Amino acid sequence: MAYMKVKVEDLRTKLLATFQDKGFSFEDAKSVVDYLLWADMSGINTQGIIKMTGTEPLQDIKPKHEIKVERDTKLSQLVNGGANPAPLVSQRATGVVIEKAKEHGFGIVGVRNTFSSNGAQGFYAEKIAKNDLIGIVCSRSPASTTGFDSVDPLFGTNPIGFGFPTEDEPLVFDMATSAMTFYGLVLAKARGEKIPADMAIDKDGNPTTDPEEAMSGAILPFDRGYKGAGLGMMVEMLAGPLTNSAWVDNKTFKEEWGSLFMAIDPNLLIDTVTFKKNASDLISKVRRSRKKDGAEEIRLPGERAQLSRKEAERSGLVEVDAVIVKELGYQF
Amino acid sequence: MAYMKVKVEDLRTKLLATFQDKGFSFEDAKSVVDYLLWADMSGINTQGIIKMTGTEPLQDIKPKHEIKVERDTKLSQLVNGGANPAPLVSQRATGVVIEKAKEHGFGIVGVRNTFSSNGAQGFYAEKIAKNDLIGIVCSRSPASTTGFDSVDPLFGTNPIGFGFPTEDEPLVFDMATSAMTFYGLVLAKARGEKIPADMAIDKDGNPTTDPEEAMSGAILPFDRGYKGAGLGMMVEMLAGPLTNSAWVDNKTFKEEWGSLFMAIDPNLLIDTVTFKKNASDLISKVRRSRKKDGAEEIRLPGERAQLSRKEAERSGLVEVDAVIVKELGYQF
Repeated sequence: MAYMKVKVEDLRTKLLATFQDKGFSFEDAKSVVDYLLWADMSGINTQGIIKMTGTEPLQDIKPKHEIKVERDTKLSQLVNGGANPAPLVSQRATGVVIEKAKEHGFGIVGVRNTFSSNGAQGFYAEKIAKNDLIGIVCSRSPASTTGFDSVDPLFGTNPIGFGFPTEDEPLVFDMATSAMTFYGLVLAKARGEKIPADMAIDKDGNPTTDPEEAMSGAILPFDRGYKGAGLGMMVEMLAGPLTNSAWVDNKTFKEEWGSLFMAIDPNLLIDTVTFKKNASDLISKVRRSRKKDGAEEIRLPGERAQLSRKEAERSGLVEVDAVIVKELGYQF
Repeated sequence: MAYMKVKVEDLRTKLLATFQDKGFSFEDAKSVVDYLLWADMSGINTQGIIKMTGTEPLQDIKPKHEIKVERDTKLSQLVNGGANPAPLVSQRATGVVIEKAKEHGFGIVGVRNTFSSNGAQGFYAEKIAKNDLIGIVCSRSPASTTGFDSVDPLFGTNPIGFGFPTEDEPLVFDMATSAMTFYGLVLAKARGEKIPADMAIDKDGNPTTDPEEAMSGAILPFDRGYKGAGLGMMVEMLAGPLTNSAWVDNKTFKEEWGSLFMAIDPNLLIDTVTFKKNASDLISKVRRSRKKDGAEEIRLPGERAQLSRKEAERSGLVEVDAVIVKELGYQF
């Protein structure tokens, strides 16, 4: 890919126009664009404006109905996304868990029936942590990943993310429970490239480096083993059966993705000031540990993305793929 | 090890007598013994009565003070264990999260200052799930496991466990975030055996198969990579800084182990009956998937332990290590 640097505010203006041209309200467009810019500014280009290209561009989504709250309690909501874009519905859900946890100590929101992935879980977990709350966020997606000595796709790539407030920036960690993302397969296929060995199996369970074979087969769990498959199943349970979306199902690529958002006030257990002090101390102890031969630094979760985002904010410039910019018809 | 089968009720009687002889009340003795028998009946012998042998036998613990509740809210408690045995304090904590979640939808209890590990997280997660609640449980332990390109021990073996109610038995999954347990090192050393390759490093960061070198070095994360280290760090955050116990610290082998217990009522999002139906459907879809060549069965989390326990309940017999039985001075 050829990358180019463009002005963040110029890109924001163009993105907002694209979504509004497609019928999204300014508020809804802003919400989706906030997410996309966060991802590209973080250097997570596989979760940014690239989602506006390909066979199912984000801006072309036609929601089936308004976002509906199907259950509402003091601590919780179940939200039917009406096949709206997942980053939009997920940001509303994030706002709700923050509000509920601020008021009652804990908030949990399940989201069903969104269209496509909500992207990087770190985005939502970070928002929660910036409100002095602990965020735990996870999403299920159509079955693409196997496990438990099976050769069938069982779970999605099922990411989970955590955010913790500290005395400094929040600590944010997110990961897919699969060895690679489904999007990685799509990209490799589009480019006519192979995928690395030990990532996927074909439909008969044989190892494959062909992305198309892997798409009709399955990706392996991230540790290629039982624990990774177990964690993938836990995410499937939390974001599938508990949100009443779908599970172990690859027939729902267009809707019924599910997500779960939780926010916990540390104050339920200890004063928030003390928690943040403790958390920062943990981080500094990890950072001061001896690095192994050949390692450049002790790199902590989320650190690279945070540095990339700060640099983009400082310079006002964000790096994006020139091919995508061209495909979107943007000129800078 | 030479295993022998003994009557569950005979063993229970002897264990209760041992703990009561050492000064524990009947109620406290029963609580610890309930845990130990659960582990051995589950076939998890590394977490059962073996904890009554070695350099720090469970029954020899001298608590420093009564269990104290340091914070109590509608949804939460922070508990100071007073260096009591962790399985005892953890069962009280489990009871509290169940009660709070039954009443308010969510319960969270942090436990600090317990002596030794609380054992298998599945024990507590299952208790929560048997009450039609979702359990998430984790524990930190003294630093023994490395990560993030470090050669120092950073986190404990930091297990995490999940329990979900279903239409049948609960689905229970637990795992250490380290490649092997610390107890595995202790056992290998005692037996004069090597540990498998790619499990641990020595104090200079070199691969080692010598358990003693690994003890002064560090165990690797379960996936030998960044995600496993990240998950270990998340558990450390939840069970350390949040419970105000300890973190990234190997000087606290005798106390300040920390644990976190959470119970979530599925009813916050969907009716419990629907959740259990959904969860069972997920499980049956996984179970019906095609198994890979050479695999005997699609083995689900917790299944082997559940079968072993049911068999022990049916027969009234439990398999234990003859050497341990002898060491405890028990005759059958």
